[in-house]
Amino acid sequence: MAQRIIMGIDPGTNVTGYGIIVGKGKRMEVIAAGVIQLGKSSIDHPAKLKKIYDRVCGLIKEFRPRELALEAPFYGKNVQSMLKLGRAQGVAMAAGLSFDIPIFEYAPKKVKMSVTGKGGASKEQVAGMLKQMLNFEVHDLPLDATDGLAVAVCHFFQGINSKTGTQHKNWGAFVKANPDKLKKR
Amino acid sequence: MAQRIIMGIDPGTNVTGYGIIVGKGKRMEVIAAGVIQLGKSSIDHPAKLKKIYDRVCGLIKEFRPRELALEAPFYGKNVQSMLKLGRAQGVAMAAGLSFDIPIFEYAPKKVKMSVTGKGGASKEQVAGMLKQMLNFEVHDLPLDATDGLAVAVCHFFQGINSKTGTQHKNWGAFVKANPDKLKKR
Repeated sequence: MAQRIIMGIDPGTNVTGYGIIVGKGKRMEVIAAGVIQLGKSSIDHPAKLKKIYDRVCGLIKEFRPRELALEAPFYGKNVQSMLKLGRAQGVAMAAGLSFDIPIFEYAPKKVKMSVTGKGGASKEQVAGMLKQMLNFEVHDLPLDATDGLAVAVCHFFQGINSKTGTQHKNWGAFVKANPDKLKKR
Repeated sequence: MAQRIIMGIDPGTNVTGYGIIVGKGKRMEVIAAGVIQLGKSSIDHPAKLKKIYDRVCGLIKEFRPRELALEAPFYGKNVQSMLKLGRAQGVAMAAGLSFDIPIFEYAPKKVKMSVTGKGGASKEQVAGMLKQMLNFEVHDLPLDATDGLAVAVCHFFQGINSKTGTQHKNWGAFVKANPDKLKKR
């Protein structure tokens, strides 16, 4: 069965979270997850962007993901923060583009909906659900890393849907339809 | 005398302008200038970003600039447009980062001030001044390309200043101090 390696990224200018999963059929496994710590605004912005770009490129070289999923808010509180966020998204996307990896974007609400069944779920609820879904000590991870994982999982579900034609709108629907696919801890 | 190859970029999601100059001492010459046409919003945004990234990488490979100067507005009319602009800036910066080229940012007002002596100069005035400064048919170029050239020229002046310690705040001051360096058409 074809194996999918998906990298999920939640770009941010203070912290960028990432998670990489391997999906085989309807099973998935975490192979890496973590954060790129960029620190507070004290260090200069181009240096932060370089760190995001270099680290994402490094992770791509190491884990060879074939699909890149980005958590991408489309609205924010002010133009300044959106410009910075756009740059962080841009360099993360460019890292994928430089390795010819297709990029998929998901709004935060869509990611939460896909993982927990609720668009308004908290980060903690997302982390809790990921812990159930994946054989992985999610609670040891910073919440920003679980955000990265969540968007990878969200994209994994989309892929399953588009390939099989089944419509698992979210994790709840997926579990209901595939009780045997659940990894037990 | 050491030669400086500077690439200037004015990133935008409809049109991205660029200009590449070679500076030797206090002289400069245009080696390339043009636009990356991205079309109206009809084509999808990641495809536009890929086009910017690929084209900037291609230009870097072809002309081997050693410094990258970006025109970077810090404010805009709304969060949506700033997010898009941030992404365009991000991929352009990432193209530079991927070739280990240092990146410098200049606000539009600073670029205009540096080239024309007036922070509120029009695109046409900037183009007109570039035509005088550079042995180049600037009027044949789209104005977005001259914006790319302008930021390269702006950065060229900064470099001269920082290296020699002289303070040519703008083109007027430069001409005054270096009447012999002017290229005559």
